[in-house]
Amino acid sequence: MHAEVRRPPRAQHDEPWSPGSAEEGTPHPSRARRDVELRLYGLNAVHAVFSRRPQAIRKLYLIESRIPALQPLLKWCVANRVGYRVVEEQDLDRLAASTHHEGVIAEVLREEPLAMSNWLRDLPDGPQCALWLDGVGNPHNFGAILRSAAHFGASAILLPKHSPLALSGAAARVAEGGAEAVPMVRMGRQDNALAQLRSAGFMLAATVVKGGSDVFDASLPQRLVFVLGSEGEGMDRELAAACDLRVSIPGSGAVESLNVAAATAVLLAAWRARL
Amino acid sequence: MHAEVRRPPRAQHDEPWSPGSAEEGTPHPSRARRDVELRLYGLNAVHAVFSRRPQAIRKLYLIESRIPALQPLLKWCVANRVGYRVVEEQDLDRLAASTHHEGVIAEVLREEPLAMSNWLRDLPDGPQCALWLDGVGNPHNFGAILRSAAHFGASAILLPKHSPLALSGAAARVAEGGAEAVPMVRMGRQDNALAQLRSAGFMLAATVVKGGSDVFDASLPQRLVFVLGSEGEGMDRELAAACDLRVSIPGSGAVESLNVAAATAVLLAAWRARL
Repeated sequence: MHAEVRRPPRAQHDEPWSPGSAEEGTPHPSRARRDVELRLYGLNAVHAVFSRRPQAIRKLYLIESRIPALQPLLKWCVANRVGYRVVEEQDLDRLAASTHHEGVIAEVLREEPLAMSNWLRDLPDGPQCALWLDGVGNPHNFGAILRSAAHFGASAILLPKHSPLALSGAAARVAEGGAEAVPMVRMGRQDNALAQLRSAGFMLAATVVKGGSDVFDASLPQRLVFVLGSEGEGMDRELAAACDLRVSIPGSGAVESLNVAAATAVLLAAWRARL
Repeated sequence: MHAEVRRPPRAQHDEPWSPGSAEEGTPHPSRARRDVELRLYGLNAVHAVFSRRPQAIRKLYLIESRIPALQPLLKWCVANRVGYRVVEEQDLDRLAASTHHEGVIAEVLREEPLAMSNWLRDLPDGPQCALWLDGVGNPHNFGAILRSAAHFGASAILLPKHSPLALSGAAARVAEGGAEAVPMVRMGRQDNALAQLRSAGFMLAATVVKGGSDVFDASLPQRLVFVLGSEGEGMDRELAAACDLRVSIPGSGAVESLNVAAATAVLLAAWRARL
């Protein structure tokens, strides 16, 4: 690794470079570190973390040509004794395990999902639309959903109690900064979650490929949760039955369904167009 | 390659297996063959070609566990003297240069894009919505656009005269069969294309990230072409200026824009919701 080590000038390093990961050429942090740290890549993903919670940034890797675009972040690193390192493109390829890093990687502290009760406690009155992701598993779909959720001002991503879905570098890159704009909320037991959401004035809409009301004709409540099933199997029947509405996005029938991320964008747009 | 060669029973092979490609382990057909043949993968992509133009199928590779799902296609291969071959998963990985083949690959003849004048000649009266792809380059975005275009019954994908965009195996897989449902049309010179579309009663809507009319409030004509720019730079200014409308999908501003495929799904949904 032909890395040029740049210690921030005029700042002492309290923390030496930690062993492992980049220095030893392993593509990912150890399991334990992966639970608390996340390797983000992509300019917009890194910029979004820097804007909202710069203190989460633990380390930065960039290629030389990115120095101008990242000047404010580099200055912040110097002032806050966060180490950065100018490396070669292929070092980033390896660190990100992807070529889509756009010349920058940040190791950041993961943000824990909010508890449902805390999220609801602080949620403003008035129109709110959240997404309940019941089975989405593909990180590109998850990232695309986060980007659209941020664009349309969704209030939260609601994750079932045992959902393994968590932000990854790939999802954050595809989200183009959207991961920082939409809070993730961890639900408890399903019946409790439904009751909590209803107490807070939400109605739940199961999103089904066929047989629901046309989402553009349906009367949508101001406080709404769209429940989205998995890419392959769609919505869980029991959960769909527990919802207040069933909505569909009518189509020609030429393909079985929309992609779940495309469907999410359309659902959020339909909700927003009614406000 | 531990491939079991299955010659169709009760059918003579007029054409021996052609040399090159699979047999010699090259990941892709030669340049010349790539211009006329396309290696499609994914169950829905292969099913869609089989439904619409089975005579385009030149060769089929599948894993053993896919035999039941592909029974009608295999029977057709036998009856029509098209060779198929049962191979190992990793052979498909290599042939598709992807692990997303879902157990089947078909080598098919490419379909030439229609000429604009031929497409317009045969286009029915009444509502029609087409997509002009001015700069989309990513095959996953292209595939996602094809899937949504098929879902919403778009009339065509319009390609600029010198656009390098062409269907690939990756795009067809992501399109989940949508590539067979929406014709591709090659335009001539831009000014001619605009004139031809207008003569056929179309209006053109430039799609811009900011500053256009809200696509859910705008009065959209029954015959409409949405013009989509490139992923990075958005719409070409001159082309946008030559359009009749400018539309946007309003958002929170939390991310710079929607992904081009998500935006396309929303635009098509907005058009369809007005019919």
